Amino acid sequence: MKNKTFVWNERVRIYDTDAQGVVHYAGYYRFFTDAFEQFSKTFLNSEFPMISEKVWFVVVESRAEYHTPAHLGDILHTYVNAEVLGQKAIRFSFKIHKGRSVVCDGYIVQVAIDSKKWKAVPVPQYIVEKIRVLEKHK
Amino acid sequence: MKNKTFVWNERVRIYDTDAQGVVHYAGYYRFFTDAFEQFSKTFLNSEFPMISEKVWFVVVESRAEYHTPAHLGDILHTYVNAEVLGQKAIRFSFKIHKGRSVVCDGYIVQVAIDSKKWKAVPVPQYIVEKIRVLEKHK
Amino acid sequence: MKNKTFVWNERVRIYDTDAQGVVHYAGYYRFFTDAFEQFSKTFLNSEFPMISEKVWFVVVESRAEYHTPAHLGDILHTYVNAEVLGQKAIRFSFKIHKGRSVVCDGYIVQVAIDSKKWKAVPVPQYIVEKIRVLEKHK
Amino acid sequence: MKNKTFVWNERVRIYDTDAQGVVHYAGYYRFFTDAFEQFSKTFLNSEFPMISEKVWFVVVESRAEYHTPAHLGDILHTYVNAEVLGQKAIRFSFKIHKGRSVVCDGYIVQVAIDSKKWKAVPVPQYIVEKIRVLEKHK
Repeated sequence: MKNKTFVWNERVRIYDTDAQGVVHYAGYYRFFTDAFEQFSKTFLNSEFPMISEKVWFVVVESRAEYHTPAHLGDILHTYVNAEVLGQKAIRFSFKIHKGRSVVCDGYIVQVAIDSKKWKAVPVPQYIVEKIRVLEKHK
Repeated sequence: MKNKTFVWNERVRIYDTDAQGVVHYAGYYRFFTDAFEQFSKTFLNSEFPMISEKVWFVVVESRAEYHTPAHLGDILHTYVNAEVLGQKAIRFSFKIHKGRSVVCDGYIVQVAIDSKKWKAVPVPQYIVEKIRVLEKHK
Repeated sequence: MKNKTFVWNERVRIYDTDAQGVVHYAGYYRFFTDAFEQFSKTFLNSEFPMISEKVWFVVVESRAEYHTPAHLGDILHTYVNAEVLGQKAIRFSFKIHKGRSVVCDGYIVQVAIDSKKWKAVPVPQYIVEKIRVLEKHK
Repeated sequence: MKNKTFVWNERVRIYDTDAQGVVHYAGYYRFFTDAFEQFSKTFLNSEFPMISEKVWFVVVESRAEYHTPAHLGDILHTYVNAEVLGQKAIRFSFKIHKGRSVVCDGYIVQVAIDSKKWKAVPVPQYIVEKIRVLEKHK
């Protein structure tokens, strides 16, 4: 992980856990979403997923692999990277650390759509450019 | 509970529970919501909380008391009652049973609003009437 | 989809949706979990994910692709298939339909663990056998 | 609100909202829980709700009133107060502000239990004392 990578920290809450005493598998997507929204606010100057009234981002794929369980009160550090996948899609990748262990990694793929027609459109150029700049600095 | 009372059954899922091994306190509002939506569909002929494009219901108060914990796999029976509170509000009350024990009871108060102006409006008359009929049969 | 495939039906609730007016991407994992728990109860005779005090299943991977958005009140049909992946893991695959459209598909991979040591153990033989029988009938 | 009152800030996330475009009514309990856990960590030196292996806190009542809707991206400030209710219970009250508007207020009542027997026990004395000190400074 290099200097331009965004990191978002948070604490595991009681509602993130389930009766197995650890974070519920689907609960990690909350951490992905939080990190993604903060990344967008910081680097893309944008209130994702609603970029404007006309252009929204919608998730077309999500994936996570779980390596070590996280428990109530754990402080998690989520590293975020963004990557342009063609004209219409961006992949946001996440690696969640607890201390030096990797707890979970995965990604979500976001596609730009026309919010009225619900049809894919090109990702706004200023967003593509901002991500390209970040990619160069990695 | 009399014959006209609506009952909705469901099973406690792993995501309803938390690290204490029981249903998370806020998770009971999921059961309230499910029972309320099924009640509305059955008796009010309405896809609550969006009655129409113009009239929505929004929750202005919620309350729950917890008596016995519920566990993964438990089958819960939620009894629903509706009560007209003046022109603009309806209270939906819930009693959740597990076998003969009362697990939780509480209510939500819904207010009708103009969805564009987000201002309270009278509850549509056909809904008031349907609830009054149910009240008589209790 | 053949005759031995399990199907679980449910309705999109208001809490499944987000401000984009459709089901939130992570919300589909709730439908996966519901279908998986019902499948396990029906075919594996087991209250997944806690098989016994000693043997638990934990999710090591989850993935979903989103094809068509689902809305409040939609009735969804989730088709489930299980597949043995070596001695210690089972993949449960899901395809969620709304009428004839595929809304979402994906899977979760469950691994058997010793719940005290939190170490992978072989999947109990009776579960492997039940899944093998289902695989033959597909 | 005086100087000893604890305040916890957070941002409304996409998963907090529903298809009405605002925070889902039950979603406010997430903000209550977050503020409560941070309060406990800060003032009670305690990883609520599991105080120790033997003593847990469980919620016996929850209530919220909703005054103004909150939207995606809103920054919310949650003010917390704690109050001893007899030997076995503590009420945590919350007031959520967005700028100068009160968005929501409410409370949860926590009761101390023996985690093995699931029976009410007195709240540990050091917690009662810490809360009494805070009450004096209000």
